[in-house]
Amino acid sequence: MAKKVAVIMGSDSDLPIVKGALAELDRFQIPYEVHVMSAHRTPTLAAEFAENAKKNGFGVILSAAGKAAHLGGVLAAHTTLPVIGIPVKSSTLDGLDALLATVQMPKGIPVATVAIDGAANAAILAAQMLALSDADLDAKLEQMKLDMEQSVKEKDAKISAEFKTC
Amino acid sequence: MAKKVAVIMGSDSDLPIVKGALAELDRFQIPYEVHVMSAHRTPTLAAEFAENAKKNGFGVILSAAGKAAHLGGVLAAHTTLPVIGIPVKSSTLDGLDALLATVQMPKGIPVATVAIDGAANAAILAAQMLALSDADLDAKLEQMKLDMEQSVKEKDAKISAEFKTC
Amino acid sequence: MAKKVAVIMGSDSDLPIVKGALAELDRFQIPYEVHVMSAHRTPTLAAEFAENAKKNGFGVILSAAGKAAHLGGVLAAHTTLPVIGIPVKSSTLDGLDALLATVQMPKGIPVATVAIDGAANAAILAAQMLALSDADLDAKLEQMKLDMEQSVKEKDAKISAEFKTC
Amino acid sequence: MAKKVAVIMGSDSDLPIVKGALAELDRFQIPYEVHVMSAHRTPTLAAEFAENAKKNGFGVILSAAGKAAHLGGVLAAHTTLPVIGIPVKSSTLDGLDALLATVQMPKGIPVATVAIDGAANAAILAAQMLALSDADLDAKLEQMKLDMEQSVKEKDAKISAEFKTC
Amino acid sequence: MAKKVAVIMGSDSDLPIVKGALAELDRFQIPYEVHVMSAHRTPTLAAEFAENAKKNGFGVILSAAGKAAHLGGVLAAHTTLPVIGIPVKSSTLDGLDALLATVQMPKGIPVATVAIDGAANAAILAAQMLALSDADLDAKLEQMKLDMEQSVKEKDAKISAEFKTC
Amino acid sequence: MAKKVAVIMGSDSDLPIVKGALAELDRFQIPYEVHVMSAHRTPTLAAEFAENAKKNGFGVILSAAGKAAHLGGVLAAHTTLPVIGIPVKSSTLDGLDALLATVQMPKGIPVATVAIDGAANAAILAAQMLALSDADLDAKLEQMKLDMEQSVKEKDAKISAEFKTC
Amino acid sequence: MAKKVAVIMGSDSDLPIVKGALAELDRFQIPYEVHVMSAHRTPTLAAEFAENAKKNGFGVILSAAGKAAHLGGVLAAHTTLPVIGIPVKSSTLDGLDALLATVQMPKGIPVATVAIDGAANAAILAAQMLALSDADLDAKLEQMKLDMEQSVKEKDAKISAEFKTC
Amino acid sequence: MAKKVAVIMGSDSDLPIVKGALAELDRFQIPYEVHVMSAHRTPTLAAEFAENAKKNGFGVILSAAGKAAHLGGVLAAHTTLPVIGIPVKSSTLDGLDALLATVQMPKGIPVATVAIDGAANAAILAAQMLALSDADLDAKLEQMKLDMEQSVKEKDAKISAEFKTC
Repeated sequence: MAKKVAVIMGSDSDLPIVKGALAELDRFQIPYEVHVMSAHRTPTLAAEFAENAKKNGFGVILSAAGKAAHLGGVLAAHTTLPVIGIPVKSSTLDGLDALLATVQMPKGIPVATVAIDGAANAAILAAQMLALSDADLDAKLEQMKLDMEQSVKEKDAKISAEFKTC
Repeated sequence: MAKKVAVIMGSDSDLPIVKGALAELDRFQIPYEVHVMSAHRTPTLAAEFAENAKKNGFGVILSAAGKAAHLGGVLAAHTTLPVIGIPVKSSTLDGLDALLATVQMPKGIPVATVAIDGAANAAILAAQMLALSDADLDAKLEQMKLDMEQSVKEKDAKISAEFKTC
Repeated sequence: MAKKVAVIMGSDSDLPIVKGALAELDRFQIPYEVHVMSAHRTPTLAAEFAENAKKNGFGVILSAAGKAAHLGGVLAAHTTLPVIGIPVKSSTLDGLDALLATVQMPKGIPVATVAIDGAANAAILAAQMLALSDADLDAKLEQMKLDMEQSVKEKDAKISAEFKTC
Repeated sequence: MAKKVAVIMGSDSDLPIVKGALAELDRFQIPYEVHVMSAHRTPTLAAEFAENAKKNGFGVILSAAGKAAHLGGVLAAHTTLPVIGIPVKSSTLDGLDALLATVQMPKGIPVATVAIDGAANAAILAAQMLALSDADLDAKLEQMKLDMEQSVKEKDAKISAEFKTC
Repeated sequence: MAKKVAVIMGSDSDLPIVKGALAELDRFQIPYEVHVMSAHRTPTLAAEFAENAKKNGFGVILSAAGKAAHLGGVLAAHTTLPVIGIPVKSSTLDGLDALLATVQMPKGIPVATVAIDGAANAAILAAQMLALSDADLDAKLEQMKLDMEQSVKEKDAKISAEFKTC
Repeated sequence: MAKKVAVIMGSDSDLPIVKGALAELDRFQIPYEVHVMSAHRTPTLAAEFAENAKKNGFGVILSAAGKAAHLGGVLAAHTTLPVIGIPVKSSTLDGLDALLATVQMPKGIPVATVAIDGAANAAILAAQMLALSDADLDAKLEQMKLDMEQSVKEKDAKISAEFKTC
Repeated sequence: MAKKVAVIMGSDSDLPIVKGALAELDRFQIPYEVHVMSAHRTPTLAAEFAENAKKNGFGVILSAAGKAAHLGGVLAAHTTLPVIGIPVKSSTLDGLDALLATVQMPKGIPVATVAIDGAANAAILAAQMLALSDADLDAKLEQMKLDMEQSVKEKDAKISAEFKTC
Repeated sequence: MAKKVAVIMGSDSDLPIVKGALAELDRFQIPYEVHVMSAHRTPTLAAEFAENAKKNGFGVILSAAGKAAHLGGVLAAHTTLPVIGIPVKSSTLDGLDALLATVQMPKGIPVATVAIDGAANAAILAAQMLALSDADLDAKLEQMKLDMEQSVKEKDAKISAEFKTC
């Protein structure tokens, strides 16, 4: 059975960003669960979720959090599954706090960090990990790459035609 | 019985910085325990320590950690005791990562943050908290303030005499 | 008699941020005074207030200021009561100036710093300090922690039900 | 046959950092190749390597680069394998340039970024990805987690015994 | 025949910024082509374009990209034509990421970087380069400088007359 | 005759910020001239203005500029009059570029820098300089300080009465 | 009688930086006093010094401090004399904390800020202020400017002769 | 006759960095002059040099300066020749000040900025500009690119042979 992806956000206010990940997971038809779990407000729940994630059929954990974004690190502390961290921009410091709090993990406990508010890429990265042992998913990723290329080419055709002076 | 202070460092490499706090606690004769506990490598231990800290006689927890410094937040998640965070400078980013990861805590779970590598001040802040219900300690703090003032005055006397041109 | 909390803001323009602290103090039924005092425009008043705060029944001082936020340090210079600093974001630099000016205090004079605009946490931190010798307040803090946990669990239940694909 | 890991550095001056990854791969007995390939000096080689990596038996690509660290992004542009980026600190800006140039990837092409100079974690993250379909490797990761925990506990025992005052 | 300028943007969302360059090129009557090409989504196309740019009659390449802005570096990797990089501000980090990812190029592969969102200056810089062997263009640049000076003088006359108090 | 203040802005777009300085100069009845002069677009004019400023009756030069704010330095290069620099926030980097470009002057050529967008303070600083030999102006400054203090006290009275809980 | 300059450092550890200012004051034969006074450890002394500085014959106050550098602001709060702030680099954050804490002063209380560790320029700026009513000092400043110019020309002659290839 | 390159440094302390540019110019046999000229200490000389550079046979100007690096902008203000700016790291802020002061130029006056301390790239960029009308130089640049590629390949061969595990 295909491994599931867990999408954990530190606060329900992160949902608009997180939806960027869900859209990609839907596109790849990767099964997922979505949770609100806080490293600080429900630390035991988060720890238990991470500890049991592997045996509960999850393959990858996505973690979205802002400010002093500890959620990715806390989940990674309790599992050896790959944890992908999405730093979420909040009202101060333009996301730099969440980025540094997510990416600068100490030796032994990595969090695979994507761009600030980069939820779509977190989902694609999860797909890339799962595709290592899932040929169908791998084919979908190859197709997505071709589609992206095609989409850029179409934009290029349109814009280069409109603005060319020579 | 006087409440103890717990001094927790995320890695034994933080010990040289942490000793700055121990010296102040010694000066104030505040009883303390020192521990190496990692938010990421021994998360369960850290959680249990924080959960039991109050009933084990601790009044304040000091937490020293570098890089993506989650330790203060993780301890604070498991106790309502005040947690004081000491961001520790590591080999990159000059301590900014540890500062932001310590101070930018979400609503509900504060970590009282002091300056980067500011372990002495963390201990003094702990003393200030404990002195709210400890008149002896309060008197020591008042004395320390007078001593600091006196020490600066002596330096001023020496330097102002040496360099005055008029 | 319960110790009071002093809430000092550097400018009346900080009031919208400061109200986040007042709401928490109200919730904990901690008595407080609110003042506008400037480290630069009314320095003598600020100094006198801090010097007399202990004998006037205050246990903790909250200080909110933006830009070159000296208020916390100036208050802390004149008392051994714990001073909690709230860096306030202003129109440039996204709060980084206030954060650094508040947290990077020299040895001997700590300011317990919370997140930029983190007034609610400043109040909770004050409550944690006062609860060291106030069992009722301690119980309220324990309850608040349970309430926060419950609130996150409810959000999780709602969101996980809405978005689960498997 | 077990999938290999490709370890690509942008310059041979990155080798001291990169060796931190090789040590972990050796520990997990994950087969790997090491290459010096530059996004800017040998772009075609880098592109070809990435394009053929999947069919050449690689499962994950590690990319270490400093300054305007484009290597991870350039490799990721040519493969759907997961690419892990290690920002390398150089003589200016303390690694911030490499971090931002590695992590802030646009939608569609993630680079899984670890801490500045965090090569060991890059290797562990690669192991976590490969372990999704490799039970032996998964067991090694679980064991490593236990070993880390044990190691911290031993340090704690030693330090807490040495410094305890009560 | 006059050398053309290639204006490459990494995403069609960069077009509003890029138009600032086109306006200047139009003013100098420098022939140009405009393309959407992504370092990450159409890397082969970008590489081929750069490799053939010289023989296709281009003299200078302008590259506009945001976030982890690799486009300038990738183009420069495939040509010895001067490449001018325009870092584009995106929704986080205020353009700092694009600036560092564009300007901090390693030895051997320069990207001539202008200000964040500084597309007009990129075009003027291209004109300056081409004017080294184009006396007409050189004269236009000299004239532009005089016009700018005149324009500032007129503003000065107006404002200094309005506000003078003495 | 009283020395005049020259208020120079790098671009007429800086006028809204600059007006904050004019208001203070008006309040102190300090005579002034206002000019738009660019370090880059009218460098000769700026140089000539600064060279002749002393003999034309100016005592202090205020310089407001954004981005790579060279104006203060360029003016200071051509005079020994004190030059006060006002870094102006522009659309990227939140004023940090203008601040650093204004304040980090090399040895020998200081620019007295005030806060980002701090035009009012630039004027007050100019008044403080001129007051060194102008007793009337000195008295006005002393009065302004009293007025500021009074104004804060009134705000304090209002707010402390409204929010006091005890 | 010539007005004196007060040179105040927040800690005697700032003396090596401060000596750069003393050398310039000596060169201009400006009388000065040097003091160690802390905004936090001897706040009352600092306040009294600033309050009495004008009537004690001082014309300008130089203030050197590191980290959360409040000294300049605290002195400026108690006088209308111009206060020049020298941000001093300490062991973390490369001087950025001291710069922002010094320069970002609120409306009404300017601190004339020079470069990080820029003590020589602080002294020259003080000289420029005093020279507004001191023709001898003004002549010395003009001469210093000529000397600097001459010194650079000599270095240019030497280096341009050594490296010229054509 | 081949156009010369002017290499201007703001201070003779920049010479060690600047030599990185001279080595590249020597390699390409591009004639050059080297000067020490300061935007602040010898502004008139710098202005005159730039104004006459074109008619004196220069094609490109390289400008190296640290801190508030105005030199590139000041030279660019007085010529329409392309000016390449090399931000030089000094003792504080890790080069960020020089980078921002060099690159963030206002509309109309570009400075082509390379990496902090990136003098070699500045020379290569100058060569690329001059090669637009110099086929010999163009061939040398193409050869340099091949040589770089070859050099990386040799390093790759050596390192990949040494570390390969499979």
